[in-house]
Amino acid sequence: MMKDFPLSKVYQLLEPGPVVLLTTARKGRANIMTMSWHMMVEFEPPLIACVVSNANHSFAALRATRECVIALPAVHLAPKVVAVGNCSGRDTDKFAQFGLTPISAEGVSPPLIAECFANLECKVVDTRLVSRYCLFILEVLKAWRDPSQKNPKTIHHHGYGTFVVDGEMIKLKSKMR
Amino acid sequence: MMKDFPLSKVYQLLEPGPVVLLTTARKGRANIMTMSWHMMVEFEPPLIACVVSNANHSFAALRATRECVIALPAVHLAPKVVAVGNCSGRDTDKFAQFGLTPISAEGVSPPLIAECFANLECKVVDTRLVSRYCLFILEVLKAWRDPSQKNPKTIHHHGYGTFVVDGEMIKLKSKMR
Repeated sequence: MMKDFPLSKVYQLLEPGPVVLLTTARKGRANIMTMSWHMMVEFEPPLIACVVSNANHSFAALRATRECVIALPAVHLAPKVVAVGNCSGRDTDKFAQFGLTPISAEGVSPPLIAECFANLECKVVDTRLVSRYCLFILEVLKAWRDPSQKNPKTIHHHGYGTFVVDGEMIKLKSKMR
Repeated sequence: MMKDFPLSKVYQLLEPGPVVLLTTARKGRANIMTMSWHMMVEFEPPLIACVVSNANHSFAALRATRECVIALPAVHLAPKVVAVGNCSGRDTDKFAQFGLTPISAEGVSPPLIAECFANLECKVVDTRLVSRYCLFILEVLKAWRDPSQKNPKTIHHHGYGTFVVDGEMIKLKSKMR
C-alpha cells in the first residue's frame, strides 16, 4: 500500500544511486524500462536528471508525453529488473510478462508499480539536452512510499549484469544534507 | 600507484552511484569537494553530468577553468570524505588539513588524489545547464586506477551523514552493458 512521502526527502531515495524502473504511457499502453543513469539536481521541489537512450522504446513516449514514474525496486525484485531491461516494450507488455502490478498515479498517466517500495510521479521540465545527450530534467510532483517494505536494500549496477547490494549502514557527523 | 584504466570501463565506476571527491585548481591552489550528484551520460568517450552548487567554493573554479578530477574513495576514507564536505576551500587547504596527497594529472591542472582507488581527469564540454541548475557536462580524458586497492567498497549517501557501504555482489544474466 503506497502512502504519501514528503518531497523534501526524495533525494534520500535517489542520491545513493540505485537501479530504478521508469514507467511511461502512450496511446493507452504502459511500458517499463530499467535505468541507472539518473541523479538529483535540486532538493525541493525535487529535480532529477536522467538519460533515456533513444534506442529505448520509452524514449519516444517520454519525449512526447513529458510524463513518467520512477519506481524503486528492492533487491528481491532484481531478477525482474534485469528481465525488464533485457526486452523491449515494442513487442512486450512488460507488466503482464513479469507479473508487475500497475497502480494509477495521482497526477500523471504512467502507472506506479505496486511491488516497488517507492514511486515518484514526474513531469519533464527541461528538454534542452535531449537532442544532444538524451538527457531529461524531471520534476517530482508527488512521491509515494510503501511502509510495509522496511529498510529495503537496493541494487547498484556495475555493468554486464553485476550488481552490488546495499550492505552496512554507517553514520558520520556530517553537515551535508 | 595509479595505472591507466580504459575509458570504455569508466561507467562501471560511476554508474553504481558512489560518493566521490572532485578536485579543482585555480590561481595555483587546489581544492577538494565531496559530491554525490553525478551520473553517466555516455559510454565512450565517457561523458558525466554533475551538479556543483554555486554555494560551493569549487563552483567558480570549475566554471572558470573548465577542468576537474573526479576521485573515487573507498570506505576506509569515509571520515575524510565527510570532513572534506564539512568545510570550505575558501579558508582551508583540504589536502594539508586532511592528509590527502595530490598527484599531478596528465592532461589537466587539478590533481589526482593518491589515496583514492580511481581518478578521472575531466574537462567541461557543455555549460548550457550551468546557470539554471549548476549542472555541468564533463568528458573524461584520462582514467587511472590503483590496482593495489582490490575490490574497493564504496559509500552511498542517504542524507545527513548516513551512508550505505557496498555489500554482497550478485550476477544476473543481463544483456545490459
